[in-house]
Amino acid sequence: MNVTALVVMDMLNSYDHDDADLLAKSVEEVVGPLAALIRQAEERDDVELVYVNDNHGDFAAGPAELTRRALEGRRPDLVEPILPPEGCAFLPKVRHSAFYGTSLDYLLRRKGVGTVVLAGQVTEQCVLYSALDAYVREFDVRVAADCVAHIHADLAEAAMRMMTCNMRAEAAPGEHCL
Amino acid sequence: MNVTALVVMDMLNSYDHDDADLLAKSVEEVVGPLAALIRQAEERDDVELVYVNDNHGDFAAGPAELTRRALEGRRPDLVEPILPPEGCAFLPKVRHSAFYGTSLDYLLRRKGVGTVVLAGQVTEQCVLYSALDAYVREFDVRVAADCVAHIHADLAEAAMRMMTCNMRAEAAPGEHCL
Amino acid sequence: MNVTALVVMDMLNSYDHDDADLLAKSVEEVVGPLAALIRQAEERDDVELVYVNDNHGDFAAGPAELTRRALEGRRPDLVEPILPPEGCAFLPKVRHSAFYGTSLDYLLRRKGVGTVVLAGQVTEQCVLYSALDAYVREFDVRVAADCVAHIHADLAEAAMRMMTCNMRAEAAPGEHCL
Amino acid sequence: MNVTALVVMDMLNSYDHDDADLLAKSVEEVVGPLAALIRQAEERDDVELVYVNDNHGDFAAGPAELTRRALEGRRPDLVEPILPPEGCAFLPKVRHSAFYGTSLDYLLRRKGVGTVVLAGQVTEQCVLYSALDAYVREFDVRVAADCVAHIHADLAEAAMRMMTCNMRAEAAPGEHCL
Repeated sequence: MNVTALVVMDMLNSYDHDDADLLAKSVEEVVGPLAALIRQAEERDDVELVYVNDNHGDFAAGPAELTRRALEGRRPDLVEPILPPEGCAFLPKVRHSAFYGTSLDYLLRRKGVGTVVLAGQVTEQCVLYSALDAYVREFDVRVAADCVAHIHADLAEAAMRMMTCNMRAEAAPGEHCL
Repeated sequence: MNVTALVVMDMLNSYDHDDADLLAKSVEEVVGPLAALIRQAEERDDVELVYVNDNHGDFAAGPAELTRRALEGRRPDLVEPILPPEGCAFLPKVRHSAFYGTSLDYLLRRKGVGTVVLAGQVTEQCVLYSALDAYVREFDVRVAADCVAHIHADLAEAAMRMMTCNMRAEAAPGEHCL
Repeated sequence: MNVTALVVMDMLNSYDHDDADLLAKSVEEVVGPLAALIRQAEERDDVELVYVNDNHGDFAAGPAELTRRALEGRRPDLVEPILPPEGCAFLPKVRHSAFYGTSLDYLLRRKGVGTVVLAGQVTEQCVLYSALDAYVREFDVRVAADCVAHIHADLAEAAMRMMTCNMRAEAAPGEHCL
Repeated sequence: MNVTALVVMDMLNSYDHDDADLLAKSVEEVVGPLAALIRQAEERDDVELVYVNDNHGDFAAGPAELTRRALEGRRPDLVEPILPPEGCAFLPKVRHSAFYGTSLDYLLRRKGVGTVVLAGQVTEQCVLYSALDAYVREFDVRVAADCVAHIHADLAEAAMRMMTCNMRAEAAPGEHCL
């Protein structure tokens, strides 16, 4: 069985940082398709659903705490639709890439994952960096193009080109990613 | 300021695995000095207290869940005295070394840590392996000799010799480690 | 002493790959300033000069072999001016980032490096990716703007913006980097 | 095809360090079986032969240089029989584990390796530590018991027990390892 992982990045956000408004505007368009993609992943036996989320410098925080803070933040409407399902893998991260300082690499290999589908925020930052770290480890990379949110549209477009041209990533609508 | 980290390993344990009884017997002697060492670490401004604990294959589990399970396990008396203090750094790990697949290396560097004090279980396994991973990264390593628990006494003794002879670790009673 | 490292990436190239002509055209403009920067690094006691170069899939190849092949390639004129000085640190790499699968992180920390100056090729690929990996490890990053070569000018420009805006990198002419 | 890798560790040694005489004495007994094992690996299509060798702090040294120095050291008789064959993968390492700061993990995965056979020196140090790093990455580990050399016999014995009991490693004579 060729297992696919859906990696949902940094969607538990309280939207109180710099550029949060620009980002939230983009997330508004993404949250619907992403919620649908997450539900699709849950229903599939051959898909591993993994949340990887920044701990925002708090090394004591686990899934429960990070979820609570996001819900109490400025945009709970962007958090509620994509809450991690019960029992879903949840890895706090400490820096931009989903692979750095986390067990993601180990988790993916243990589950026999060959293809990593990336979704979440921010296209030109964590999504791009995690795509790179997946690519150097020779995972196939797919970007759910309507499920990734950006701060700067032009950098996001350049990031999409970098991923598809230089990292052999496939870009597709979420509904065709799994 | 030369910062020291106290790393408490795998003490949130439900003691229902192979060799758990052998281990628990050793933990009984360790839990008192370790609880004292943890309290000492809490009171010191120049000591970072970090719990690193196996997730036992459950990638959804955070600090709250791992703590709850240990308290509901076979030996809550070995867990209660060393519960992680509120707000204390807590890194779930997935394999034997405290550094593998965790943000421990990043956390230690960010806090300016030079010396790592190791405590917890198991001397001849996770403690030894984490000592190695600290040593290759050129942290100074100290083992709190009365705060580490073993399964096999002879292997634990060999592990202590490996750490002190081959990894330049210092072995000392917990009360002299910080 | 705050040590700076000059990391020269992938300049030992036989220029026989896809897009090599586009790249070589950009390298032509870079090789002069880069050669000057390398000489400057050699003369400074507080600068570590490190070459990191792809092994192009040959895990048997060391510095001598990679140098020889580049000199026997299609553009020795782009290689001769930047040959690694005798005794200079030289790390073969296997993928795009200079940090992945190499001892660069260890080397930088051992030498007490705080600032990493990036030079070489390709701006929108290895340079960008290595900048990211330096940034997540909390090194200060500087890009020698006239010493990095690109394949696609627009992606290179986006990469420079990503590095300066999102990774707090400084971009400066090589002569002001050390 | 289930690929096996034979990893030969630290055999390019000039034997001028502390404890070199104790070590050399053990290597004398190992060098014959190890040379035979290396030849066997060379003849097999499903075996990857990989040398991983300490750079002894010289980040400029590649395979050619490390080989030359070992041959010019105090015990060329222990080096000549196990010289790396032409074209054989050769990874300089910087610390004790063959995985730390090297591309070994990447190389093994790229070649589809499932089982790692460990040989070389020192049983209770680099061999033990590399066994651990292979085990946490979920490679099957085999130790070529008559092809590993020690400094301290008692620690080597403890190391063998740690590998076979705690890391599920198999210990077998070299001739049965591939």
